[in-house]
Amino acid sequence: MPSLNHLQISFPIIQAPMAGGATTPELIATVSNFGGIGGLGAGTSAPETIKQNITDIKALTQKPFMVNLIVLTEAQSRDFDCAIPDWLADYYKSNDIEVNLPKHPAQKFSEQLQVLYDNPVPIVSFTFGVVNSEQVKRLQQLGMVVIGTANHPNEAQAWEAVGADAVCVQGVEAGGHRGGWLAESDADPLGLLALISQTKNCTSLPLIAAGGIMTAQDIKAVLAAGADFAQLGTAFLATDKSGVSDDYKNALVAASQGKRCPETRLTRLFSGKLARGLVNGFLNDFAKFDNQFGNNANLPPYPQLNAMTTPMRAHAKKHHDVEHLSIWAGQGVSQVKKEPTTELLKRLVQDL
Amino acid sequence: MPSLNHLQISFPIIQAPMAGGATTPELIATVSNFGGIGGLGAGTSAPETIKQNITDIKALTQKPFMVNLIVLTEAQSRDFDCAIPDWLADYYKSNDIEVNLPKHPAQKFSEQLQVLYDNPVPIVSFTFGVVNSEQVKRLQQLGMVVIGTANHPNEAQAWEAVGADAVCVQGVEAGGHRGGWLAESDADPLGLLALISQTKNCTSLPLIAAGGIMTAQDIKAVLAAGADFAQLGTAFLATDKSGVSDDYKNALVAASQGKRCPETRLTRLFSGKLARGLVNGFLNDFAKFDNQFGNNANLPPYPQLNAMTTPMRAHAKKHHDVEHLSIWAGQGVSQVKKEPTTELLKRLVQDL
Repeated sequence: MPSLNHLQISFPIIQAPMAGGATTPELIATVSNFGGIGGLGAGTSAPETIKQNITDIKALTQKPFMVNLIVLTEAQSRDFDCAIPDWLADYYKSNDIEVNLPKHPAQKFSEQLQVLYDNPVPIVSFTFGVVNSEQVKRLQQLGMVVIGTANHPNEAQAWEAVGADAVCVQGVEAGGHRGGWLAESDADPLGLLALISQTKNCTSLPLIAAGGIMTAQDIKAVLAAGADFAQLGTAFLATDKSGVSDDYKNALVAASQGKRCPETRLTRLFSGKLARGLVNGFLNDFAKFDNQFGNNANLPPYPQLNAMTTPMRAHAKKHHDVEHLSIWAGQGVSQVKKEPTTELLKRLVQDL
Repeated sequence: MPSLNHLQISFPIIQAPMAGGATTPELIATVSNFGGIGGLGAGTSAPETIKQNITDIKALTQKPFMVNLIVLTEAQSRDFDCAIPDWLADYYKSNDIEVNLPKHPAQKFSEQLQVLYDNPVPIVSFTFGVVNSEQVKRLQQLGMVVIGTANHPNEAQAWEAVGADAVCVQGVEAGGHRGGWLAESDADPLGLLALISQTKNCTSLPLIAAGGIMTAQDIKAVLAAGADFAQLGTAFLATDKSGVSDDYKNALVAASQGKRCPETRLTRLFSGKLARGLVNGFLNDFAKFDNQFGNNANLPPYPQLNAMTTPMRAHAKKHHDVEHLSIWAGQGVSQVKKEPTTELLKRLVQDL
């Protein structure tokens, strides 16, 4: 059976598998070849794209890497059952943006998972939900290490129950989407240190710590807290191998230089699911429709709202309008740097 | 000039100065005599009580201890300018609880501070605001180490600017009231690790880390992150020298045994200022009136709402009704134990 701790890894550093284009095969291979673990955020990719990405990564590295999928039910990925909210429809109308929603709000998870069954990779991780023990076993039998994501100890226990090899515990500090799915996970998000400590108290899974980690000292802190690995996302976003746009990179760097501690916020406005990004025009303008911590969100759920805001974000990207992009970033964003990916890795390892 | 690092302290452990009765002279002296730093939460105490407490503590220990005050303007401590909210007035009416509000919602900060000028203590810390550099200098000239509280790097910088000797950085994980005062501090609270890392990035003050710290491993983690001391509050609450009621202690311990990770929540409902406590009947029943992260809270501000809910909490305490007490607790509460204070201290030090 595979195990995270038996893989040939030199440093306990994982590059977070961020969906949406940041995690290019070049970024992943750079991290894995350096001795860490690169991660592909494949959750929003079509099956054929995932297959191609895996082929591309394997051509660039012989070292372990990770592919991350978003767990959705068939119904979640298939149906729109909510209308576009009025405030968003009004925004589209007043900005003359044509809205052609796709037939389905998301890719089919079962088809994405089949790509992994057919094209095994060293490590597969999951977010937004939990798979069943048969699926875990099948992946493991194909040689894959299986990792879950948890924002709450109860979610870590759910991953332990289905036989996962490790769990990524993602604190409130983390940029991008929160990977949990239980109500208690978002009702009052746990800080990373409390999450690590309490998860260790109730599971025996190896832990990957995620959320706000930017420096070697941050890595040392989470290892001291009991984590086995540190996962960094925002730290890689502005590096040269990252696939996000120059506008996105510049927004991160501007934020890090403009104030000592730039404002990020947890929001449901972009996708229906809680995610952390830089505060910009979109978040400010529609703040009153947001529902970060309430149980009765009156926003369409993920992935429907995600699909509904895609035309806005595509339009904004085309017009270099960072006020209407989702600039996902963690609470450590003040320490982001625009630099070669290898420079970041060297600095992290040198200071470890 | 005094300095935190030159005090005779054996262990980098501070017992948080929790206002409201938890921090008895016996608790403080036990911690200080053991080699840590005990802290008196004097923010809501009358000047003559503070003076008596200082005398009592000095009779029990020769070692360094801390007194904490709540920074309020004269106007804040003097005037009620809001009415009791309807939902609270209705609660009082339907439960036949007589409401006799005090003349002033809080003690006068200037009078409390005068007690310290007249009765110097080794360490004084402040929360809910920042004092001015003349006040800091006067305290220092009287031999006191001066510590501020910050939930955000900008607040740490404010304390550095007035000449404080150290700052307590309190992450989102922390139980009880958040010590910050700037809007950015509560808009999207920072996790402790990100707070430490970013504060170190913009100030050179020694840091005391607070929030969710329950075990020696948690302490090691915040020291690895760059903090100089760890401050623990919840961990001490159920120990024998703590002054909270048995009902309070039992509620904490029941929560820690009932579920692996009990639900705490940040709320303004008890006092008007954001504070973390166990979710109970009061928080659930009036959740829709809460306003945790919004800028336009429609609740009376601290200390007015704090004074307005005091009759409810006094009634609840008398009737052993933990559903209407403020059961302040941090996110690490699942690891709380009912035990002698010295047992907790021994376990922390042994594992360090």
